[in-house]
Amino acid sequence: MPLECIGEELRLKLLGAIEAGGTKFVCGIGYEDGTILERASFPTTTPEETMALVFEYFRDKAVEAVGIGSFGPIDPVPGSPTYGYITTTPKPHWGGYNLVGAVRAELNVPVGFDTDVNGAALGESLWGAAQGLESCLYITVGTGIGAGAVVHGELIHGLSHPEMGHIYVRRHPDDRYEGFCPYHGDCLEGVAAGPAIGARWGKPAAELEAGHPAWEMEAHYLAHALMNYVLVLSPQRIVMGGGVMKQSHLFPLIRTQLQELLAGYVQHASLKDGIDRYVVPPGLGDNAGLAGALALARMAAEKN
Amino acid sequence: MPLECIGEELRLKLLGAIEAGGTKFVCGIGYEDGTILERASFPTTTPEETMALVFEYFRDKAVEAVGIGSFGPIDPVPGSPTYGYITTTPKPHWGGYNLVGAVRAELNVPVGFDTDVNGAALGESLWGAAQGLESCLYITVGTGIGAGAVVHGELIHGLSHPEMGHIYVRRHPDDRYEGFCPYHGDCLEGVAAGPAIGARWGKPAAELEAGHPAWEMEAHYLAHALMNYVLVLSPQRIVMGGGVMKQSHLFPLIRTQLQELLAGYVQHASLKDGIDRYVVPPGLGDNAGLAGALALARMAAEKN
Repeated sequence: MPLECIGEELRLKLLGAIEAGGTKFVCGIGYEDGTILERASFPTTTPEETMALVFEYFRDKAVEAVGIGSFGPIDPVPGSPTYGYITTTPKPHWGGYNLVGAVRAELNVPVGFDTDVNGAALGESLWGAAQGLESCLYITVGTGIGAGAVVHGELIHGLSHPEMGHIYVRRHPDDRYEGFCPYHGDCLEGVAAGPAIGARWGKPAAELEAGHPAWEMEAHYLAHALMNYVLVLSPQRIVMGGGVMKQSHLFPLIRTQLQELLAGYVQHASLKDGIDRYVVPPGLGDNAGLAGALALARMAAEKN
Repeated sequence: MPLECIGEELRLKLLGAIEAGGTKFVCGIGYEDGTILERASFPTTTPEETMALVFEYFRDKAVEAVGIGSFGPIDPVPGSPTYGYITTTPKPHWGGYNLVGAVRAELNVPVGFDTDVNGAALGESLWGAAQGLESCLYITVGTGIGAGAVVHGELIHGLSHPEMGHIYVRRHPDDRYEGFCPYHGDCLEGVAAGPAIGARWGKPAAELEAGHPAWEMEAHYLAHALMNYVLVLSPQRIVMGGGVMKQSHLFPLIRTQLQELLAGYVQHASLKDGIDRYVVPPGLGDNAGLAGALALARMAAEKN
């Protein structure tokens, strides 16, 4: 039986998902159990052009709610005057754009809205590598670094949303690269995102062999970040995705360095023998982003 | 009318509070609205001796629930086999002590249990400097450094409890002191808790005048820590207590350095003109610890 029909039979809610990225918007529909039925992708140009394609995609889909996992910074705090806006992005045309307002006005359904990484954290906790846990952290290491977290089943907000990719970590003693973050120079993103690896070693991360010293240095930075996240949030699992983490040989390097840094201070089996199941790749693979948006749609549908 | 009678008239629940510290146990009773009626203090020697005094104190108090804000590390995760235990403390006699089990067996009331700093964070959010907010962070800077946080009205747990005092922050360029943390050497606690200030400058922090370079260095470390907490947790307010923070001239130094470090990346009024109301001393003053334990008692009474 096709997936559509199984969902129909179980009377699952049909939901829409928008993974709003800086280069493309991936749209899809799926069921509230995390099943993704179909997807389509549109280039991120101007809000007028891109959103016209998004609306056209959803026009005949009859979804009950839509979730948006968005590039940022955004305002995800309900009740704030700019709730639902993309706020201060350097991306031309999108700063100050009321993304939630536009989707709500056009599709007239509940809209869930959060950062792409908060969405992915929620998706992984519902259907992926952190299924069944009360808390988890999802971090993506690609052209940038971002992370989201679930605590007691809820996504973290406060003043606004986390920006965990911009923490300062201790510099690797052999690293002379100054970092590329326009705000902080050598914050985590500035020294450990894909462009930093490329600039430091003179060729793209994907072309550096597994034994290259680049990876020990990359593991140094990511393990320092994970140490901070463990000490601040105490997540029950850490899911690492994004282009750089496709280098699966990074995982054992990061796990070992994380254990060395914590030095046995936090006593938990997950940080000792269980470390291979503690720092893991996404259970949803390349679907983490779109499934995350679907998870945000589910949350919006439930709240409605 | 005496406080006791007002509480009686309003039919407020009478609750017990235990602030379990490494040198003394402070016990008290109070109402669920945060009013503390009385307190007593007992030295922390062995569990047998100390707890006998604690039980004697509560014997005729008829409290409806007890809250314990404890030194750690502890196991605050309900359902864990060692829930309610003090786990791996270097404090003699107390490692592996089932504190919650002992209190429950003796007093036969619901027991709330968490770290002292998580308790203080909850107390500040209910009755103190973060009243009415959905999230806050409480950090104490004294003989050690610890922090607790409220997110969406709940205390953070996961693997266990946060240990935010042990994050690594960037070293101050002029600092040659190696740090005193037995686990991590120069982690935040190792370089910025009271003993580090004393060891670095050759006299106790309390004896260093306001213009001493010690304070600019201390602000460097604490502002770096706050930057990480802001980027990971996005708390709506940060409350700073503990002996070192009695030096109130530290507050403006920390606020300014925090703004410089964030460099405008997180756009929020609280981090600009509102910074004086964002990084603040405890609203509950020296009662933060005991009121925190009272808040944990209230949570236990509500859950029951």
